[in-house]
Amino acid sequence: MPDTQNNTNKPARPFVFINAAMSADGKIATIERKQTRISGSLDFDRMDELRATSDAIMVGIGTMLSDNPSLTVKSKERREKRLASGLPPNPVRIVVDSLARTPVDADIFKKGEGRRIVAVSESAPQEKAAHLAKYAEIITTGEESVDLEELLIELKNRGINRLMVEGGATLNWGLISEGLVDEIYTFIGNIIIGGRSAPTLVDGNGCISEFCRLRLISCEKLEDGIIIKWRVSPSSQAI
Amino acid sequence: MPDTQNNTNKPARPFVFINAAMSADGKIATIERKQTRISGSLDFDRMDELRATSDAIMVGIGTMLSDNPSLTVKSKERREKRLASGLPPNPVRIVVDSLARTPVDADIFKKGEGRRIVAVSESAPQEKAAHLAKYAEIITTGEESVDLEELLIELKNRGINRLMVEGGATLNWGLISEGLVDEIYTFIGNIIIGGRSAPTLVDGNGCISEFCRLRLISCEKLEDGIIIKWRVSPSSQAI
Repeated sequence: MPDTQNNTNKPARPFVFINAAMSADGKIATIERKQTRISGSLDFDRMDELRATSDAIMVGIGTMLSDNPSLTVKSKERREKRLASGLPPNPVRIVVDSLARTPVDADIFKKGEGRRIVAVSESAPQEKAAHLAKYAEIITTGEESVDLEELLIELKNRGINRLMVEGGATLNWGLISEGLVDEIYTFIGNIIIGGRSAPTLVDGNGCISEFCRLRLISCEKLEDGIIIKWRVSPSSQAI
Repeated sequence: MPDTQNNTNKPARPFVFINAAMSADGKIATIERKQTRISGSLDFDRMDELRATSDAIMVGIGTMLSDNPSLTVKSKERREKRLASGLPPNPVRIVVDSLARTPVDADIFKKGEGRRIVAVSESAPQEKAAHLAKYAEIITTGEESVDLEELLIELKNRGINRLMVEGGATLNWGLISEGLVDEIYTFIGNIIIGGRSAPTLVDGNGCISEFCRLRLISCEKLEDGIIIKWRVSPSSQAI
């Protein structure tokens, strides 16, 4: 695991990687934000292994509201292996949710055992945050929106060393633009989704002149698509 | 070259392929629509060879207005090879421009020898089309916007058998959604551009449920990125 704090005096943060499946034209969902089957069972299994070997899994509130993911480890064997290693069956599940909009009946709270964290900002309505606090640990950073760097330091302080990010496009942008991502793994599926407003791997404000630079780690065929692994270049600091 | 008219009774059209460079997150330009150096000299050379071996090169009016491309074959050797084969130095250069907005001082008219075509619709202001007719052949199809299928038939009738499409996102969508594309070649560069409104490989209305299916022809590393070649599945009819 690369050392994520060897070149600065900043406080330590976890090793952070983004994993996502996208269409051949870079979309992670349709214009209706509907999740679409982009990859097959081998990629699903690869994702499950990534989950099982991470300390925590993070999604943004957009993904939470549109997909209602449980973020659990699906393989019983992998959960048992974690238990045998003294770990909880599922990694810590984290929602980045500046305004505390996560519904308390979300699958993330109902399905699977293990710890949940909802990361909110100081702008989150107090009663909502208090209500969510019955289901998850609440970490508050940032004024109007979650301060991602501060959040990662808080997570590191809680023993989270390896953090898997499962989107969506806005959270990916937030992390990448602040120089907080170490690696990006994309499965490129054999479909075109299209759509001017369809979410892509990285949305947000976007780069104008300074781009986040990557180094190709590997690319290989997997079922009907391709897995590409990129390492974010150390020179790509916050944009 | 695959037979593009073996499964229907439709009139013949050229073999159509899209070639594009995109960022690792599927963008072909920034939110300001600024062309960005995504690929290196080897990919540039690969593109030039594709141009030199095509009968025509097509772009949409958005790309014309934002990039002002000349669409010429850059290599002198390749132009000479074309001449030695009895071909003009450059392939036919085509702009899909429903409302005849192409400026008459565009580089496509000023640079390089060879035939130009501006494809307009019946909604194009007559005086503008008449003015452009001094610089290019005008083909009129469709009422409000160019009828791409009809246009391709017209191009085939003019001896264009192999058509290279160089974007942008809207033209790519128009062609793909009408089932008029045979192959798609993408160079994926080692940068993240991001941006919710940045143009991607395929924009337009996008697919909701029926997706354009692809078959992977090949993927290989090229310089700091990856070349992926897809064949559009014959079952992917107009969406």
